[in-house]
Amino acid sequence: MHRIPIGVLGASGYAGRELCALIQRHPQLSLAFATANEQRGKTAELPGGGRVTFVATDDAPLESAKLVFSAMPHGASKIWVERARAAGAKVVDLSADLRIGNDGSTVPYGLTEARRETIRGADLVANPGCYPTAILMGLLPLLEQGLIAKGATISVSAASGVTGAGFSARTDLLFGEITENFRAYGVGNTHRHVAEMRAMVSELGADADLLFTPHLLPTARGILATMTVPLTRELPNALAPWITRYAHEPFVELVEQPPETRHVAHRNVVRIAVSSVAHVRTPTLLVFSAIDNLMKGAAGQAVQNANLMLGLEETMGLPA
Amino acid sequence: MHRIPIGVLGASGYAGRELCALIQRHPQLSLAFATANEQRGKTAELPGGGRVTFVATDDAPLESAKLVFSAMPHGASKIWVERARAAGAKVVDLSADLRIGNDGSTVPYGLTEARRETIRGADLVANPGCYPTAILMGLLPLLEQGLIAKGATISVSAASGVTGAGFSARTDLLFGEITENFRAYGVGNTHRHVAEMRAMVSELGADADLLFTPHLLPTARGILATMTVPLTRELPNALAPWITRYAHEPFVELVEQPPETRHVAHRNVVRIAVSSVAHVRTPTLLVFSAIDNLMKGAAGQAVQNANLMLGLEETMGLPA
Amino acid sequence: MHRIPIGVLGASGYAGRELCALIQRHPQLSLAFATANEQRGKTAELPGGGRVTFVATDDAPLESAKLVFSAMPHGASKIWVERARAAGAKVVDLSADLRIGNDGSTVPYGLTEARRETIRGADLVANPGCYPTAILMGLLPLLEQGLIAKGATISVSAASGVTGAGFSARTDLLFGEITENFRAYGVGNTHRHVAEMRAMVSELGADADLLFTPHLLPTARGILATMTVPLTRELPNALAPWITRYAHEPFVELVEQPPETRHVAHRNVVRIAVSSVAHVRTPTLLVFSAIDNLMKGAAGQAVQNANLMLGLEETMGLPA
Amino acid sequence: MHRIPIGVLGASGYAGRELCALIQRHPQLSLAFATANEQRGKTAELPGGGRVTFVATDDAPLESAKLVFSAMPHGASKIWVERARAAGAKVVDLSADLRIGNDGSTVPYGLTEARRETIRGADLVANPGCYPTAILMGLLPLLEQGLIAKGATISVSAASGVTGAGFSARTDLLFGEITENFRAYGVGNTHRHVAEMRAMVSELGADADLLFTPHLLPTARGILATMTVPLTRELPNALAPWITRYAHEPFVELVEQPPETRHVAHRNVVRIAVSSVAHVRTPTLLVFSAIDNLMKGAAGQAVQNANLMLGLEETMGLPA
Repeated sequence: MHRIPIGVLGASGYAGRELCALIQRHPQLSLAFATANEQRGKTAELPGGGRVTFVATDDAPLESAKLVFSAMPHGASKIWVERARAAGAKVVDLSADLRIGNDGSTVPYGLTEARRETIRGADLVANPGCYPTAILMGLLPLLEQGLIAKGATISVSAASGVTGAGFSARTDLLFGEITENFRAYGVGNTHRHVAEMRAMVSELGADADLLFTPHLLPTARGILATMTVPLTRELPNALAPWITRYAHEPFVELVEQPPETRHVAHRNVVRIAVSSVAHVRTPTLLVFSAIDNLMKGAAGQAVQNANLMLGLEETMGLPA
Repeated sequence: MHRIPIGVLGASGYAGRELCALIQRHPQLSLAFATANEQRGKTAELPGGGRVTFVATDDAPLESAKLVFSAMPHGASKIWVERARAAGAKVVDLSADLRIGNDGSTVPYGLTEARRETIRGADLVANPGCYPTAILMGLLPLLEQGLIAKGATISVSAASGVTGAGFSARTDLLFGEITENFRAYGVGNTHRHVAEMRAMVSELGADADLLFTPHLLPTARGILATMTVPLTRELPNALAPWITRYAHEPFVELVEQPPETRHVAHRNVVRIAVSSVAHVRTPTLLVFSAIDNLMKGAAGQAVQNANLMLGLEETMGLPA
Repeated sequence: MHRIPIGVLGASGYAGRELCALIQRHPQLSLAFATANEQRGKTAELPGGGRVTFVATDDAPLESAKLVFSAMPHGASKIWVERARAAGAKVVDLSADLRIGNDGSTVPYGLTEARRETIRGADLVANPGCYPTAILMGLLPLLEQGLIAKGATISVSAASGVTGAGFSARTDLLFGEITENFRAYGVGNTHRHVAEMRAMVSELGADADLLFTPHLLPTARGILATMTVPLTRELPNALAPWITRYAHEPFVELVEQPPETRHVAHRNVVRIAVSSVAHVRTPTLLVFSAIDNLMKGAAGQAVQNANLMLGLEETMGLPA
Repeated sequence: MHRIPIGVLGASGYAGRELCALIQRHPQLSLAFATANEQRGKTAELPGGGRVTFVATDDAPLESAKLVFSAMPHGASKIWVERARAAGAKVVDLSADLRIGNDGSTVPYGLTEARRETIRGADLVANPGCYPTAILMGLLPLLEQGLIAKGATISVSAASGVTGAGFSARTDLLFGEITENFRAYGVGNTHRHVAEMRAMVSELGADADLLFTPHLLPTARGILATMTVPLTRELPNALAPWITRYAHEPFVELVEQPPETRHVAHRNVVRIAVSSVAHVRTPTLLVFSAIDNLMKGAAGQAVQNANLMLGLEETMGLPA
């Protein structure tokens, strides 16, 4: 079988290795190269059993790849995206450099379920952040259907496993600092992901504020977003907007009980539940959205987008 | 030294054993008895190194204790509180049976920092739930000072370690079900603790709704409450209400960074931080409050109350 | 495609659900029924994303299955194995009831790599315990090649994640009891698995004692066995016996660094490393063997055996 | 009250901060200074609730301290020990630099229960490693009483929580790499601690080899050593040697069930159990020994030694 050659820039981090693993198991893709400057020449184990040997990023044979994933750090990614594009490769950029909400960026935003047709025709896609994926997927039906109260504040409390912070030698991410601990960070709407979420809320026509508070979980993987959403009116069937919107989506699971992060681990899905609330006068809905931050929140969605960009079946090679 | 004899009913659970441990290390108290029907005759290890041997609850020599802690299950506690009172003992009840918000209950609510003088003169105190302790301690300055917007919804997302669910043989609390997992439960304002929190919010004169969403953390201990609070107006110095209110409180720590649950573990303190928020039009404050659910959230606060009821120094025997 | 109908008895436990998940994803098998008396009529989530609805064990349509896996509890399994066999189904029994080392049992022992040809022709196979799989796979080359010192004691210290103890409502398996803890259990060669290991050591012709000490890890999955093996003589190339023995085995990985349990998680492999030792006068080798207790240690090996018994490719449907 | 001024060099690591916490809570000691070059001027939280502000090591007022603890890294500690001694301070060195087994070292080895009288008169003590403390305390009665078979190999499989690896920015110690994982390291008797253990075994007159295999646990704290010990003869009462030897030791707990690491957490104790073994021809005993690696395995034992060196009650300020 003739496989499509794919490159991964910045492959030694958590998202990068997840990408390599997905590519190695993909029925139509093959891994042309995987770069990691500090790990050049070294071999790493991949989630699920494979291995990959890294080359220096400067040595990446960009022209050999039909499509390149950039999992380079924020700030460092943009230049490599340009080089890969110049070499003729399509690109999915997993960094924040080119996402909606950045000044003047017009790069298609890779929230697949929201921008599928644009992505299908694109040569360059900015893959969403992990939190924005969970949160926007949870809010999308309400945003698109104009159900969020005008001028209201959507309060989002979200929590992520530590792989979301990257494979970095930081003492605050040591096991001894994380086990038996829980804390908020990036509080007061200061997290990097706020910009792309606000931009999408606005682009989808909602006049609402978003207050996003992330927390660090003592888990490796998983994001759960718990969202308090003021509505224009009580909904007779709370889940109806999601049922309608996501009826044919292969990677969306609507559930009756609050979703658990373990049930989406290692899967490219978002699991959503909603709940009405007692004892509150304002029409309000609770929306819960869970993803694996490395799959639907990063590498999985990146491959989902790449499948579209390459004319393949959208679900190909992705564990649902 | 002559020590005051203390009894513990329902001592084999997490809160019960924590109580026994605190009593054994307390400089003025001694453990007269500890009951546990299913564990009668058995000896258990206590947190921090001691041991206790349980007697059947029916065999508890209630009259031998000057004060009795009831850590019996909700529903089963009330009758034992009455028996202990009838036997002449003062009682701190850790169950929900007699708390504010129950129909007709007039038993003093043991949120020490809010009801200190009432507790000092009481023979019976209803110890608050673990979540309400974290949440109400965080909100108290705003509630008492009338700073919460009228008719607003306070959105509280809180998370607790699994000891908060008790020492029960439930498959959903097995290590294999909790590790690498995170989920909400009791959603939609249906949790048992909502009643006492709403009652206290109302009693303190605030006209606000509370929307409480608890989550289950993969930790043994710790509660963190993340609260979005709509204010009557922007506060020039966000922390000022807490500094004023808690200036002389031995068990309240105001911190600048979001509190971490590990920093309050095994301590009878509540740690609070606040944060203003960007990009939100409505005056809004984030309040973070962290406790050890077994200490300030249960056994520690119970001993704090008992110290007051027995005329002892409030902080005696309590790790701060 | 015509799939082979498979039944699972005792499907609600950890191994049972893993079996259901493997069968649902297997290209040639289909799940005919899954039984669980206490969960009858209920639906459970499976590892990796599927779901299964349980029927009562008494209602199991045994005759509808070509092959039945019994994951019933030890002691209760034997009778169901007989019923399934009487109904005409082949059976892989995951309990200890029929394993080698039980009085008079002549049922083929399903340590696939040691007994492949026997299993291929069998209608009934006793699937090995999780610890014995890790330990015997590690020792097999030394045992078969007569390299273990006569009369010596092989000291095996092994550790398992808590799913090895089953999906039981036991307070000693609660998250709060396991997190931040480590302990031995079943000490002094008293563990249920000792019998089958001693029987296999003997059957393979070695005159050595085995001293097995299991420990309980604060992980969900994974077994690591650390084995001190007195040899007949120093080996010039320590790994040579394994390289020779396992040259063509699809599920054995020989590695240079000590194996990590996470690298075998969710995979049907055993990963083995050996190390010579300094400062010890007696010729001694350290052997390390790691498996996923639910995969190669239970459900995975069971499907591996079933594949052989059904005339399918041995590796079919198994993540390597 | 007049307190004795104490300095801590290298105070920002796990053992250093534990030392600071113990000193702050000690009834007779006060913290004169705590050094940490990279953290100079910064304030850190201590276990149990205190805080400490670090000074640069070069700025340490060594002459102000009556006793100095050095928790500097191995290799870097020796020179600071000399400087502190030259400034007139007594020193407890927690590094490996001066321990028994190093070429020519004659510094008293601070395994308190084995060398109490020497330590009492010493100005400089080399505090044992964490593993050697657990292992030698477990073996001491057998070693001193000549009960270990001549020429035999004691096989020690031990496991430690990750704080044993220090507070270092290493990617292999990240939460994401440790959770749900278990592995051996330093295999083949190559670990740094082998030297001091072999030296002590020899000094105590035993003619036995020690084979030490450490493992990394997904816990913050705790060491458990599981030891297979060939004996000269079967012991009629297996625990008798420990009962005799440790009858009056305040920090030794002999227990009937295998010790759990959680039961020694945050305590300066060693908990020991023994087990005879079935199905083994050679007289053999299993010895289990558990400590908190930061307490009895480091800071706690260091304070225990300092108490002796300063003429204080040995148990003062130490949680038992």
